[in-house]
Amino acid sequence: MTDLDERNGGAGGPAPDRRGLLDAVTRYERALMSDDLPALDELFTPGPATLRADATNALVGSTHIAEFRAGRGGAPRRWLRRVHLRWIGPDDAYVVAESDRVGGHGVQTQWWHRDEVGARDADDRRVPPAAAGIGRRWRVQAAHVSGGPAPAGLGNSARPGAGEPVQPPAGESAVWRVRGAGRPLAGGGPGPLAGVRVAVKDLVAVAGQRVGAGVPAWLGEAPVEPRSAPALQRLLDLGAHVEGIAQTDELAFSLMGVNEHYGTPWNAAAPGRVPGGSSSGPAAAVAAGSADLGLGTDTAGSLRVPGSYCGLYAWRPTHAAVPVDGVLPLAEDFDTVGLLARQAALLRTAGLGLLGAGQDGHVATTGPTALWRSQTLMDLATPETALAVDAALTALSVATGLPLRELEIDPGAPAAWTRAFRTVQTAQAWANHGAFLTAHPGAVSTAVRDRFASGASVSPQDLVAARESIQLTRGWLDDVLAGGWLCLPSTATPAPPVDSTAAQVEEARTGTLLLSTLASQTGVPALNLPWGRVGQLPVGLCVLAPRGADTALLDLLETLGPPG
Amino acid sequence: MTDLDERNGGAGGPAPDRRGLLDAVTRYERALMSDDLPALDELFTPGPATLRADATNALVGSTHIAEFRAGRGGAPRRWLRRVHLRWIGPDDAYVVAESDRVGGHGVQTQWWHRDEVGARDADDRRVPPAAAGIGRRWRVQAAHVSGGPAPAGLGNSARPGAGEPVQPPAGESAVWRVRGAGRPLAGGGPGPLAGVRVAVKDLVAVAGQRVGAGVPAWLGEAPVEPRSAPALQRLLDLGAHVEGIAQTDELAFSLMGVNEHYGTPWNAAAPGRVPGGSSSGPAAAVAAGSADLGLGTDTAGSLRVPGSYCGLYAWRPTHAAVPVDGVLPLAEDFDTVGLLARQAALLRTAGLGLLGAGQDGHVATTGPTALWRSQTLMDLATPETALAVDAALTALSVATGLPLRELEIDPGAPAAWTRAFRTVQTAQAWANHGAFLTAHPGAVSTAVRDRFASGASVSPQDLVAARESIQLTRGWLDDVLAGGWLCLPSTATPAPPVDSTAAQVEEARTGTLLLSTLASQTGVPALNLPWGRVGQLPVGLCVLAPRGADTALLDLLETLGPPG
Repeated sequence: MTDLDERNGGAGGPAPDRRGLLDAVTRYERALMSDDLPALDELFTPGPATLRADATNALVGSTHIAEFRAGRGGAPRRWLRRVHLRWIGPDDAYVVAESDRVGGHGVQTQWWHRDEVGARDADDRRVPPAAAGIGRRWRVQAAHVSGGPAPAGLGNSARPGAGEPVQPPAGESAVWRVRGAGRPLAGGGPGPLAGVRVAVKDLVAVAGQRVGAGVPAWLGEAPVEPRSAPALQRLLDLGAHVEGIAQTDELAFSLMGVNEHYGTPWNAAAPGRVPGGSSSGPAAAVAAGSADLGLGTDTAGSLRVPGSYCGLYAWRPTHAAVPVDGVLPLAEDFDTVGLLARQAALLRTAGLGLLGAGQDGHVATTGPTALWRSQTLMDLATPETALAVDAALTALSVATGLPLRELEIDPGAPAAWTRAFRTVQTAQAWANHGAFLTAHPGAVSTAVRDRFASGASVSPQDLVAARESIQLTRGWLDDVLAGGWLCLPSTATPAPPVDSTAAQVEEARTGTLLLSTLASQTGVPALNLPWGRVGQLPVGLCVLAPRGADTALLDLLETLGPPG
Repeated sequence: MTDLDERNGGAGGPAPDRRGLLDAVTRYERALMSDDLPALDELFTPGPATLRADATNALVGSTHIAEFRAGRGGAPRRWLRRVHLRWIGPDDAYVVAESDRVGGHGVQTQWWHRDEVGARDADDRRVPPAAAGIGRRWRVQAAHVSGGPAPAGLGNSARPGAGEPVQPPAGESAVWRVRGAGRPLAGGGPGPLAGVRVAVKDLVAVAGQRVGAGVPAWLGEAPVEPRSAPALQRLLDLGAHVEGIAQTDELAFSLMGVNEHYGTPWNAAAPGRVPGGSSSGPAAAVAAGSADLGLGTDTAGSLRVPGSYCGLYAWRPTHAAVPVDGVLPLAEDFDTVGLLARQAALLRTAGLGLLGAGQDGHVATTGPTALWRSQTLMDLATPETALAVDAALTALSVATGLPLRELEIDPGAPAAWTRAFRTVQTAQAWANHGAFLTAHPGAVSTAVRDRFASGASVSPQDLVAARESIQLTRGWLDDVLAGGWLCLPSTATPAPPVDSTAAQVEEARTGTLLLSTLASQTGVPALNLPWGRVGQLPVGLCVLAPRGADTALLDLLETLGPPG
């Protein structure tokens, strides 16, 4: 991406007119969806050489293309998922738009060219710029449209038979700790969530069940919970039911979804890859279609990371916007309870329910006026992941009509943010679970134990300094988000292979933490859009909204589809 | 086309490297058909930004694309029909390849870029040109592939159910003059053409039938033919049978396929359009699927024009290579008997049969070493037609691997050729039919009568001068064809609407004569490839081969497919 921009737009040439091109692509998308024939005609270069191909035909000449369009009665409704942009030169670009359709997928490729407004009329005669107006206009010189069934194997809403469970190769033992034998563990009734099967992370109290926290020694001493956690109860009150209690990484202190005691839940969206964690079980259950909604927690990314790895919509609420009572804490300055879903619409309905009826303390917003993109944050992901996330982000900009702006961030900043976050997180984690871990040597894996133990040595001075750093970051980000929502990769990579070495896993985790801790420490709400693809593997685009703007963030899902 | 070349390659910039690009496209096509994975990988730009989309997916990054290719087990066999080439700049081009597949159609669009050889390695690092070799290489930066059923309504072999007759809106009265009631009028038996239904132009003797020549007054006086014309007999001897006697324009002296007495045969490939003539009935019958093979004549284009208008393969043999005995003459210096078919393979088989077993006097050739294209000849067609024919010609070059070379022709030459041809043609036509027309005033339409009458005033000096001009043209063309086969539009336009004004018809006819009389007067063989499309309307690419090289010309069809 950078490479292509450099080649054609840098090195002495003018910078590519990204804004102008995206404006034109956005106008095209709106005109297509509203079957606005004059607008569509105007967005195609007039003349006999313009091309428009589909699976059975290639039409040549703007007149024939216009005739075809006038006769077809509109294009099928589509929801953009990825818009890949490549600069051919300063005045030419290649654009690939991938979209979901009802029951299928669509791909459209276009060559866009920027020319003087009205430089050629319909008969391909030159028109003097003075007579045609001022400025230059992006128009389609050639287009190719195709569509087919949804790609197989992806755990998002576009997966064929998304409601049908996918059977993992070796049973579901690693996904669920407890599952009702054909009936709900709790809940079920009328309401907007009637029939919705919830996979509850084994950190959240379910009435009549114990909390296992992914650690057998913990489970062995856990009491039966007298009532469900208030967050869960809100879902149950809306008609949802608990399909089962799904696995978590040990004490929620991991991002990979690997659990030494119970195994690694199967990632139906990326077979052979880890599901991500720590909300690994809920994510795996929803990706495989054996639950519709995952209720989990997110301290450092534990909903966004499995959402990214498993191709699921994931929502981390504003800190404290959803009650964490009845949920085992990890680091209370950052702990949140949130959701995972295959379907955007379900995530929104359930998310609004989780926020409660009154939504006290939430800022009423009307949504953003722009989207921020940061090259510094993109560079924290691998080049392939950054390209995939950029494609998803461009699709979001085109689908919403929100302009995309570049945000300057010092390349050293993310490491500093993450250090401050880790200081507070590990100190609180040790304060919460140090006694248990000391009393139960060997109860958790070495990697997780070491992570906790690093919190034991945090000094009060370190803690004060870290909290001061976090305050600065919060203030900076609040200012940024007042001008637009910030979009970044949810993870630095797609899901690593289950047979990765410890070093490979650590690299993926470290890279992702540099991205995920920004929302965690500032407490702003975050939404994972599962639209990126690296090869066939999903990878998520993360959208950060202003503190308290959860409703506006969830409302974004309404305009983004997909069907279902 | 010219316009696009001008914009980017002219005006001070270097000329586009058309030859280098077509070479690369040709290598790609061969590698694709032989599933040569290393060659395919090398033809795609290495790096993470390269794109490859199909109906359900867009892959990003050359590694993922290579993995996909390695896993799919080859691409389906395809036969190129149109390759549209648009220059984006001197180092970038947009290429659309349309192809026939078994039972369907394929469309592939590609953005090609020319870069220094090895300028980037697989990890996207720059490699010094000195280390990488010399020169620049065309590679694919982005591709989009789709396929579907064959387009509806086209009368060529790609039409669905090409063997199933298509019913014209108002019966077939204008197509056939005589049709056997469920049984052949002649022929039928074992042989390579067993079962092949022949529509015989009503100018060719069929044993036991009269020749009607498209004129009721002629038919009224015509005797019953004692035997079939030798050309027809050759087809019957190979097992074909006469399905019926199909209409002709009046005395074969027209190119539009309109007949005042019998009506205009329905053009199944282009409803609402004339079928072209004078072999109008055979072309209409074959296009509609109610015959497989049309036996007709071509003096000034009477097979090539309906072939172009009706989307059929058409072959005009070398003058005198197929006997014209038993066929009503129009202008014996130019009269030939040839064929029309939907299927390339059938045209070849029947054509070889028509040439006779010994093929005496035919030059044994091994096919051409290059293809000539002439801007002067392209400019005789409308811009849309020229673009369509150029797309077909590029497909022919890529499919055969024959390089495409530009032939300089003086823009005034075609009018001079045509004047000379018309002088001899009208003089001979009047000599042949002047007595009949004088004896039967009102027997033919005014336009046709005027055409004949113009031959009455040709002086012996005019005739000598015209024949001298023709000799010069023959010599020039023989030299040209020794270096490569000449490709040009078969007609200046696609089929005009049936409700065209007389002036519009005259314009289409005049433009087409400037193209069609070159083969007629020089006597070289010509093949119409029905591959061009203007909107949905077929238009043909005409290939001229050296005198006597009919076998090589027909053999070309073997390598071009399509299935059937």
